[in-house]
Amino acid sequence: MAHEELNGGGIFPLGGKAESEYFTGETYRNMIFTDPEPLNAAIGSVTFAPGSRTNWHTHKVGQVLLVTGGEGWYREEGKPAQPLKQGDVVNIPANVKHWHGAAQNSWFVHIALTPGETQWLEPVEDEAYGRLGQGE
Amino acid sequence: MAHEELNGGGIFPLGGKAESEYFTGETYRNMIFTDPEPLNAAIGSVTFAPGSRTNWHTHKVGQVLLVTGGEGWYREEGKPAQPLKQGDVVNIPANVKHWHGAAQNSWFVHIALTPGETQWLEPVEDEAYGRLGQGE
Repeated sequence: MAHEELNGGGIFPLGGKAESEYFTGETYRNMIFTDPEPLNAAIGSVTFAPGSRTNWHTHKVGQVLLVTGGEGWYREEGKPAQPLKQGDVVNIPANVKHWHGAAQNSWFVHIALTPGETQWLEPVEDEAYGRLGQGE
Repeated sequence: MAHEELNGGGIFPLGGKAESEYFTGETYRNMIFTDPEPLNAAIGSVTFAPGSRTNWHTHKVGQVLLVTGGEGWYREEGKPAQPLKQGDVVNIPANVKHWHGAAQNSWFVHIALTPGETQWLEPVEDEAYGRLGQGE
């Protein structure tokens, strides 16, 4: 799908495909800021095709998401999935197991600010992902 | 001007008018992230009407700008003004005197990540601003 077709989220170029071992589906990442100063975090723009999502993972320091386009989900282990849309901001605490990704019928684009290491875990299974928004 | 009319930059709500003593013209700021963890920086979305700009200022630690819409300028003292458009990223070093703002004929929207204090200085004079893009 062309970048221009993204739902208002096409601010930064798509970048390359994200590592397939840590994502399910078609996902792109563009690291837009990686200088060592003045922030404690690297900044990437991440674009998820409909239905695609990260694996479950944790951040040693935490992460902040700024949603720039489309619709998606954020889910912490043991809690209901939280719908996300353009303009939403998420503060992901350190060492909390979670995933994020696109809705089934929408592209989803967010800026991710990551001040420390990420520990990647297992994929989100299709069956569990398919139940999102259906009362779970 | 309605938020919807912004040139692709209307991701976050406008917020309130920015302090008039530090800006020239119509400028809005929405602080979208101010939690103490996990970043070393607060995050604001700043929207400049055509022709509006910050005063000259410095940041004790520095600042990063992510341009989300429109067209504007970034100028460091003693250097030519640098044009900015959607998708541009600026790393502003600590203690460098500078200003940023909209082009004469465009709204301009950026996310600002600010890890320390700001020292506000004198306004950018109309005469100097008016020469931008005319060979200076």
